[in-house]
Amino acid sequence: MNLPVLYLRKGAERRLRAGHLWVYSNEVDTRRSPLNEFEPGAQAELRAANDKPLGSIFVNPHALICGRLISRDASHGMTPQRLTHRLEIALSLRESLFERPFYRWVFGDSDGLSGLVVDRFDDIVVIQISTAGMELMKSSIVRAVQRLVHPKAIVLKNDGKMRKVEGLETYVEQVHGPEVSVLPVEENGVRFEVSLAEGQKTGWFYDHRMNRQRLQAYAPGKRVLDVFSYVGGWGVQAAWAGASQVTCVDSSVSAMDMVHHNAALNGLTNVDTLQGDAFDALKALCDEKEKFDIVVLDPPALIPRRRDQKAGEQAYARLNQLGLRLLEREGILVSASCSMHLSQSQLVDIIRGSGRKIDRFVQLLEQGHQAPDHPVIPGIPETDYIKSCFVRSLTGFL
Amino acid sequence: MNLPVLYLRKGAERRLRAGHLWVYSNEVDTRRSPLNEFEPGAQAELRAANDKPLGSIFVNPHALICGRLISRDASHGMTPQRLTHRLEIALSLRESLFERPFYRWVFGDSDGLSGLVVDRFDDIVVIQISTAGMELMKSSIVRAVQRLVHPKAIVLKNDGKMRKVEGLETYVEQVHGPEVSVLPVEENGVRFEVSLAEGQKTGWFYDHRMNRQRLQAYAPGKRVLDVFSYVGGWGVQAAWAGASQVTCVDSSVSAMDMVHHNAALNGLTNVDTLQGDAFDALKALCDEKEKFDIVVLDPPALIPRRRDQKAGEQAYARLNQLGLRLLEREGILVSASCSMHLSQSQLVDIIRGSGRKIDRFVQLLEQGHQAPDHPVIPGIPETDYIKSCFVRSLTGFL
Repeated sequence: MNLPVLYLRKGAERRLRAGHLWVYSNEVDTRRSPLNEFEPGAQAELRAANDKPLGSIFVNPHALICGRLISRDASHGMTPQRLTHRLEIALSLRESLFERPFYRWVFGDSDGLSGLVVDRFDDIVVIQISTAGMELMKSSIVRAVQRLVHPKAIVLKNDGKMRKVEGLETYVEQVHGPEVSVLPVEENGVRFEVSLAEGQKTGWFYDHRMNRQRLQAYAPGKRVLDVFSYVGGWGVQAAWAGASQVTCVDSSVSAMDMVHHNAALNGLTNVDTLQGDAFDALKALCDEKEKFDIVVLDPPALIPRRRDQKAGEQAYARLNQLGLRLLEREGILVSASCSMHLSQSQLVDIIRGSGRKIDRFVQLLEQGHQAPDHPVIPGIPETDYIKSCFVRSLTGFL
Repeated sequence: MNLPVLYLRKGAERRLRAGHLWVYSNEVDTRRSPLNEFEPGAQAELRAANDKPLGSIFVNPHALICGRLISRDASHGMTPQRLTHRLEIALSLRESLFERPFYRWVFGDSDGLSGLVVDRFDDIVVIQISTAGMELMKSSIVRAVQRLVHPKAIVLKNDGKMRKVEGLETYVEQVHGPEVSVLPVEENGVRFEVSLAEGQKTGWFYDHRMNRQRLQAYAPGKRVLDVFSYVGGWGVQAAWAGASQVTCVDSSVSAMDMVHHNAALNGLTNVDTLQGDAFDALKALCDEKEKFDIVVLDPPALIPRRRDQKAGEQAYARLNQLGLRLLEREGILVSASCSMHLSQSQLVDIIRGSGRKIDRFVQLLEQGHQAPDHPVIPGIPETDYIKSCFVRSLTGFL
């Protein structure tokens, strides 16, 4: 391959050498290699200031992340063959770990496919493309997916926020098979259905799979409150595992409808819903002196951007205090976060502070992370975002 | 209760208020309350410099950790009743999580019983006392254990290194039941036996239980190397879960004997041993160009003290590089650490660096912690020590 060359400024290769796969636009030597000479999605050879080749990249001159490493071998561009090989390597991991085809098959950079997410819902495959480079590979992606798993249907759910940054239009398009409106999910032995049109992201968050499995170990005989429940991922699994009663709280009316639907799908009649703002609902439950054996807190990212750090941490603290207040004298708090900007140790410290503030003795029993179909790349902190703490809270103990 | 008072220096109460339970001798206002006026193991009321009561403590004037909080209520000393109550609260957690009586029943500070560890091996209970305060409660502990679980045998394995610091003699004494020489263990469905006399600590490390369970998910059909295997906790469980072949490496001859014994106990014939220094053995296997599908590294604490930090981190790096080198092109590294002085993120960074150094694309699939019978207290960093990383290593991938 004879690719055009993108040169970095001096020292800018350090993060890449340490394991990261991204190039930021301010790291490019634009005098030597003007970014506007590259088409969005073009492939290029990446070189350090001293001319040493660093690999091949996808370029997008309009994005802050203007380069995404394809390979550390500069002669290896992204081809349909290489794409298929990476999809196979990604598939072999998931097939070795999961018996049934319900998982994230491709998790972007973590599978060497920056800008691509692929989820499997039995014989339906949902693809999300978020970069110009991957958009140009679209037909190869669809063909490879067809060839590798022969799905009944393939949906391109290209409506993510990241696309605007890359100068891409947003659209949802079914490119193969009979029309899909409902996605079937199976997780830890429990069945769900999600609306393709109304579902968030690709429809389901497989990332909390292992944490929900652990919840099942704690649930038997317990009264459970599932806050920010979406379609009932945690709550319905708790009920299925033997919880005596489950209440799901979410602001979305359609999510609440789906909770009832999903409970019924599993023959469960002890799952209630409480539609409304989660913070308001928790305060109201506190005022009513309601108590639960288990409270699950799985909020959306409360620190969406770095500049929201302080306000976000305060929101997590308020939330965790409310959760602890709603527990029986011996209760379990499952506190999750999907904020990339909140580390595991920061979440633990928020729980510590919340416990001290209202005089609970808190024992951190388990620390959970994202499921193995969402691998973390140690050099790319952005790939590490899910955390969960299983905490036992004791009142009047010490 | 009318307890003598121990006064802290100004500001020294901060760590306790944040959740910790220890007082260091240099934090005591010895002018106001001379430490040498307290007997080792005596109970006292703890007060801040401004006279505010902070709770009750066990005192040991000879130890660096001279005070250990019993309660945040100064009127609550440690009594046989309070001890029994705490044993009950600890027991209820374990009974709710584990079907069979094989677990750490009491994990010191984490269960509000500083200086006490109690492990259950079916109907045998092994107790470890490491502080003067708990030593004085010895007969109450034994009576409470008898009353709560009616064990066949109770062993005091009071031979830990910490006892010297507290001015206590070391001894092993069976205080109840017919003589015990072998401890039975059941973990994740697999049976083991450990020699009481030759076993490390109480005999078994239940702390890695959840991580070994996860190993079972990866093991089927795989060739596994278990480094620092002790009596085969990881390796025998991998074989039991369907590994094609397992090799256990440890420097202890008696541990190697027990690996064979434990494999046979589960009807397994595909577990080999390699007795010798782990680093030497790994280097020799590298020289012989041996390859494995899974390498498990579970070394003893390579950073035993803070001053060993740098050398210890280097040892972890060497170890992880050797482990990665021994993997097939697509292999799994299970890298564990029980060093309190090595954080989860430091271990991940060591794996990142090791992978970069020998050009492997490493995907961090799972991050494991100590099992829930070893609760972490968020205000006491010393209670958080076990971590494990499940890493997929790909050669020639990116």
